[in-house]
Amino acid sequence: MAKITVEQFEAIAQERLPFAQLMGLKLEQLSDTEAIARAVYREGFLRPGGTIAGPIMMGLADAAMYALVLGRLGPVELAVTTSFNINFLRKPLPGDLLARATPLKFGKRLAIAEISIYSDTDPDNCVAHATATYSIPPPA
Amino acid sequence: MAKITVEQFEAIAQERLPFAQLMGLKLEQLSDTEAIARAVYREGFLRPGGTIAGPIMMGLADAAMYALVLGRLGPVELAVTTSFNINFLRKPLPGDLLARATPLKFGKRLAIAEISIYSDTDPDNCVAHATATYSIPPPA
Amino acid sequence: MAKITVEQFEAIAQERLPFAQLMGLKLEQLSDTEAIARAVYREGFLRPGGTIAGPIMMGLADAAMYALVLGRLGPVELAVTTSFNINFLRKPLPGDLLARATPLKFGKRLAIAEISIYSDTDPDNCVAHATATYSIPPPA
Amino acid sequence: MAKITVEQFEAIAQERLPFAQLMGLKLEQLSDTEAIARAVYREGFLRPGGTIAGPIMMGLADAAMYALVLGRLGPVELAVTTSFNINFLRKPLPGDLLARATPLKFGKRLAIAEISIYSDTDPDNCVAHATATYSIPPPA
Repeated sequence: MAKITVEQFEAIAQERLPFAQLMGLKLEQLSDTEAIARAVYREGFLRPGGTIAGPIMMGLADAAMYALVLGRLGPVELAVTTSFNINFLRKPLPGDLLARATPLKFGKRLAIAEISIYSDTDPDNCVAHATATYSIPPPA
Repeated sequence: MAKITVEQFEAIAQERLPFAQLMGLKLEQLSDTEAIARAVYREGFLRPGGTIAGPIMMGLADAAMYALVLGRLGPVELAVTTSFNINFLRKPLPGDLLARATPLKFGKRLAIAEISIYSDTDPDNCVAHATATYSIPPPA
Repeated sequence: MAKITVEQFEAIAQERLPFAQLMGLKLEQLSDTEAIARAVYREGFLRPGGTIAGPIMMGLADAAMYALVLGRLGPVELAVTTSFNINFLRKPLPGDLLARATPLKFGKRLAIAEISIYSDTDPDNCVAHATATYSIPPPA
Repeated sequence: MAKITVEQFEAIAQERLPFAQLMGLKLEQLSDTEAIARAVYREGFLRPGGTIAGPIMMGLADAAMYALVLGRLGPVELAVTTSFNINFLRKPLPGDLLARATPLKFGKRLAIAEISIYSDTDPDNCVAHATATYSIPPPA
């Protein structure tokens, strides 16, 4: 079971992560082994060529990872991303994006996860795949 | 010499990259071997802990890389990022961010660059370092 | 079905990939959607601390990716890795390593895969996770 | 000044890093802000196409990073790579390779460096560029 609820995460995002609001971020599911986040489509996501811009996918992946970390650790303010790697696989057409984060490892000092991003317009094909590392602050 | 001017890039960003406007993007310099982009600070950049959120740095790095590619190739609409890797080194305090992109390689099919990000509040220490790969469309 | 057999891949590795022999490389399975490669343990794998050195895991991941690409494309000599990212999750004790490569995307110009590495001494926990991009040469 | 000498590092590599010997590893320079390592060419480096195999470059980059970390911290046995990212830029012809590692950050828990690899056959063009993160064990 997650250490924070979907509602608690969305309250943190609402108050403390302004860019998440720009992405229309909604958390769909949260457990201690999975977080699924949605970016509700708006025209501001587009880039030249009529597809969704890379930074929107990066921001959504980072938000899903953050939810996964808080779901496991509780509301630890100072957990931060230390590295992030993403491969863009297909160009997503206009539509909502979904990011699913699952842990590769939760250690004492580092949490590592992979994040798969899908478009609502083509749910069978991953549009981007990321891995991210979070540094976990020592217990107070 | 760059194949597009700073003004041309900013016009593209203004019309076609809505998220760039959310970041307060300004292009400071552009040649065929260097692009320097600025994100003008606003409160929306912050994350819990009082530092600037990772996705702002990722978006700025991606924009500087995009400027570098257009500076070398001209306004090629379909050039897209294929992979992006970033290491977060220090937590930037509130203030403008600057990203400097320089090429590692411009090939026929792929362009690879590194991007160093600095905070105006501490210009001697890099806050994040990224590498990115762009796929270059075949000539029409 | 793969475009080359396990035996054909091992013959290529034997004749053309000398470092693969240093790693005791064996291909366990090959289809057009999966390659599983084994590094047969030898003392030369160790690093200070009594665990297996990172470059052994990197070499094994790269070999599994190469098998996956040849399994899909046939024996294309000039396909080369363009980028490679790996997260080391746990320190593998002395023992054989297994790497399983599966495609994230096979495009015309780029193939992208993820590779999970396991130790025979603890098959339930991934010791390292990599993603790799291959550049596919244009048809002759 | 480095906390270990070139000779001390080479003794560690000789005794404790067997794969380094397979790469013909030599440390050329070591300070607390730079490590330069050489892989002395042998036929075993080659891959199909007549260029040097990626894992040789990865192993050399990792060794240069390891020297940089030990140069800064002294002979800390349990420092290990946690993530490694490399972009292959040009195909190196047969010849020695040189890797130069410089720090992006030395923190209390993580050390992050970039590593540029050159071929003796074309010293003006980087053949590969890597970034790596090391986890630093807490003081005993």
